[in-house]
Amino acid sequence: EIPPNPACVNSHGQPCRHPLTNTAQNHDLMACEAMVRGHFAAIEPTLRKIASLQREESFVESAQSIARAELGFELPARPLKDAWVNGLDVRALYGASVMRTIRLVIDKTQAIVNQDNEDDVAFFLDCGYHAVDITPCSDGRLKGLIRYILRLPGATIRSKKAYAGAMFDVEDNVARWIETELMRYREAIPVPADAGTRYLKIVVYHYSSSDPDHEGCAAHGSDERLAAKAGLDRLSEFRQAIENSFFCGASVDTLLIGVDTDTDSIRVHIPDANGEMTLDRWVCNLRLYQDTVNLDPTSARVKVFEAISDATVADAVEGPHEGMRRLIATLLINNLSQVEYVCGRYGGRYPDIGHNEQIISVGDGFGEFQVRNLAYFVYLHTVEESVQDLDVGIKIFTRLNVERGLPIPVSIHFRYDRRVPGSRERSIERCRRVGDAIKSRYKELYQQGLLICGATVQDMASGSPIEPIELDNILIGRV
Amino acid sequence: EIPPNPACVNSHGQPCRHPLTNTAQNHDLMACEAMVRGHFAAIEPTLRKIASLQREESFVESAQSIARAELGFELPARPLKDAWVNGLDVRALYGASVMRTIRLVIDKTQAIVNQDNEDDVAFFLDCGYHAVDITPCSDGRLKGLIRYILRLPGATIRSKKAYAGAMFDVEDNVARWIETELMRYREAIPVPADAGTRYLKIVVYHYSSSDPDHEGCAAHGSDERLAAKAGLDRLSEFRQAIENSFFCGASVDTLLIGVDTDTDSIRVHIPDANGEMTLDRWVCNLRLYQDTVNLDPTSARVKVFEAISDATVADAVEGPHEGMRRLIATLLINNLSQVEYVCGRYGGRYPDIGHNEQIISVGDGFGEFQVRNLAYFVYLHTVEESVQDLDVGIKIFTRLNVERGLPIPVSIHFRYDRRVPGSRERSIERCRRVGDAIKSRYKELYQQGLLICGATVQDMASGSPIEPIELDNILIGRV
Ligand SMILES: [Zn+2]
Ligand SMILES: [Zn+2]
Ligand SMILES: [Zn+2]
Ligand SMILES: [Zn+2]
Repeated sequence: EIPPNPACVNSHGQPCRHPLTNTAQNHDLMACEAMVRGHFAAIEPTLRKIASLQREESFVESAQSIARAELGFELPARPLKDAWVNGLDVRALYGASVMRTIRLVIDKTQAIVNQDNEDDVAFFLDCGYHAVDITPCSDGRLKGLIRYILRLPGATIRSKKAYAGAMFDVEDNVARWIETELMRYREAIPVPADAGTRYLKIVVYHYSSSDPDHEGCAAHGSDERLAAKAGLDRLSEFRQAIENSFFCGASVDTLLIGVDTDTDSIRVHIPDANGEMTLDRWVCNLRLYQDTVNLDPTSARVKVFEAISDATVADAVEGPHEGMRRLIATLLINNLSQVEYVCGRYGGRYPDIGHNEQIISVGDGFGEFQVRNLAYFVYLHTVEESVQDLDVGIKIFTRLNVERGLPIPVSIHFRYDRRVPGSRERSIERCRRVGDAIKSRYKELYQQGLLICGATVQDMASGSPIEPIELDNILIGRV
Repeated sequence: EIPPNPACVNSHGQPCRHPLTNTAQNHDLMACEAMVRGHFAAIEPTLRKIASLQREESFVESAQSIARAELGFELPARPLKDAWVNGLDVRALYGASVMRTIRLVIDKTQAIVNQDNEDDVAFFLDCGYHAVDITPCSDGRLKGLIRYILRLPGATIRSKKAYAGAMFDVEDNVARWIETELMRYREAIPVPADAGTRYLKIVVYHYSSSDPDHEGCAAHGSDERLAAKAGLDRLSEFRQAIENSFFCGASVDTLLIGVDTDTDSIRVHIPDANGEMTLDRWVCNLRLYQDTVNLDPTSARVKVFEAISDATVADAVEGPHEGMRRLIATLLINNLSQVEYVCGRYGGRYPDIGHNEQIISVGDGFGEFQVRNLAYFVYLHTVEESVQDLDVGIKIFTRLNVERGLPIPVSIHFRYDRRVPGSRERSIERCRRVGDAIKSRYKELYQQGLLICGATVQDMASGSPIEPIELDNILIGRV
């Protein structure tokens, strides 16, 4: 029904042009993606080139000059100096380069991406939400969710912690809701408690339209219906937990979104007037793209709102409130640009529909790091609690890296709150503890130099610098 | 200056009688302590007796009949039945008996201890506090803190989580404060937000008057000044974290208390009018006992209040507010009963001034389990984060049990909130995860049968039953 290259129905060979596409934004995002991918892609050929020179006279100097030119930084001196004795320790250099590239790329991203402005906060408030909290699956293919797929201003999202299968921790989320509420009551931030606004919790699951049985969500056995149902159940548990503990009316709205990781198109489950969603009532944005690509902007916009109404009408239920309708319409329209982005850049579908990550990102994760398939992310406080998610990541990277003799780069990152005394010190301690636990869990890989850990901390405030932390593998700490 | 048996200054050979002692309460507490200690004390002799019969004809029946009579429950059948082949597995029976005794003792305690009533809540509110949160050191000798040493109604305390060295987790405590505040704002529970009441955070450190250099707080190298200073610093970090994050005035009061674990007498650090405390400004309740034991009740009471005022007068600072003064006076007066309790029952000082615990209690801990030196307690979510505290416990029990061939009983206990969907299931999962981590950390002990884990969960509501959970060692689960 949907063609292999679904966004390109009506333009034979020609690139598509949807009337609602934000062309300027697509251009900027493309530049950012190219910058990030370029830096990572340079690592392997550069090291190969350097390795080929290791018997030459002034090896250290030439190696560093190549590294500066191709990678943008110098390599750790020790392996270069020692190369003449035992051969070049490519694994150590690879690990160090990946860790250094992460910081380089984040610095550049922070410089490129516009700071979020008051309009962005105003948008959510206009829809009736004082806080928006999004839980995607930790799958690396959703790493571009906020900035690319949904085109939302990252800093205005209350939380975007990812969990395997989007199965978020209910207690953790209730605690965040409580904190948000208290800010409204005590400080009227962002609006007073009696302003009639709500807290919005979104869950994002994913599936693969090209290979649904294999490239969907691993945490749910690549079963898209199961993934959706699990998300729906968890959302309802969250809402019920709040209602049961705080006797409060429905001050929480929930929303379920599916992402086709092959095309980045979304599917939004439309709530009814009571906020209830079903597995089968959704608006498919691929279809909407096809239906609106030849219209003028106003008609296209009307059609988006119609699609939302049609969904609840077809089910003979009342539709969601005005603010929710506007929010959904905006998400759909934003995502039309991304459908076209994937179309224009990748011919409709990503070539790497499966795993193809560069690093395992562990801890709180990098907010700046929003490019698809760049990181396999495990949100964790302790290895003990998240060992299954980590094992999956190690398995993926055994195939991606270890089989070619390259190490698995594990980047540990925790955020702290400089307003809380001792918080930074505790986040550093946490990096070290998690690092030790990872090395002990995957001891064999680590001892062969096939698993390399780096660690960084960062203040909570948006745009804060990334601070590298020395773990015991001094080599990487010094880069 | 303070005599070896400090509470007995003026009665040569005669038991002391302080005019403010709550004799009826002392009597009840003594009965409760005797019940608890009696059940644990019965385990070893009973198993020895049973072991001596193992070659007899109807061994299983006689063993069970002895167990029922002496311990109050039947032993697991398997080791008794198999005894004729490999000899009696005393380690397994000991572990099972300890786990079963814990539940028996808690059931009995729940039946004995009066439910807390509205007067108790009213007392704290009268002092100006809508919530009281106490952090003691996790040392087993403070296990009787709330019910015995301070004589406070347990259910009205917001939290009493213990940490090694009383070094509580600031983030965790701020989250609890936030939740308490939201309840006031949203639900006016226990009083509306504008009632002018405060949140009180108490830290309790400890020291040994008999052997200060060895039997003080292990977490602070048995240095009482260091223990007090660490508590003071942590309290100030907590207050600052709240002020920095919520811009709110001093809605939090803090209080530092020291306990002499040899006599159970307390020392209260007296805050000034700004809530500031110092290491050297305190009221010593042993001294107060001596100074008031021969007075009439009214004069004794006046003297307690005078001691509080004298402390700040001597420092030439203004004293704390009326509510804080009343709270401190009440704590001191309550503790006078405990000083006399220890005097009457143990001749002024405990005979076991060092470690003498029966179990390692891990997780959330048993609120009902308030008898000194009964449990070495490690409050934890994961073994990974608390491995140092656990190692200390294992070391203590290696000396107490393993050297005599008896296993270390580790009792894992987590509470859940039945109002939160899935919370009970998650607490059970947590029991199993922590159990696995403990067995893997102390693999050798476990494989020799020298470490035995049991697990239980319990709803948050005060007085909820203890629910045993099967770990993989089926034997204990079945008892
Ligand atoms: Zn196209
Ligand atoms: Zn997934
Ligand atoms: Zn006496
Ligand atoms: Zn201690």
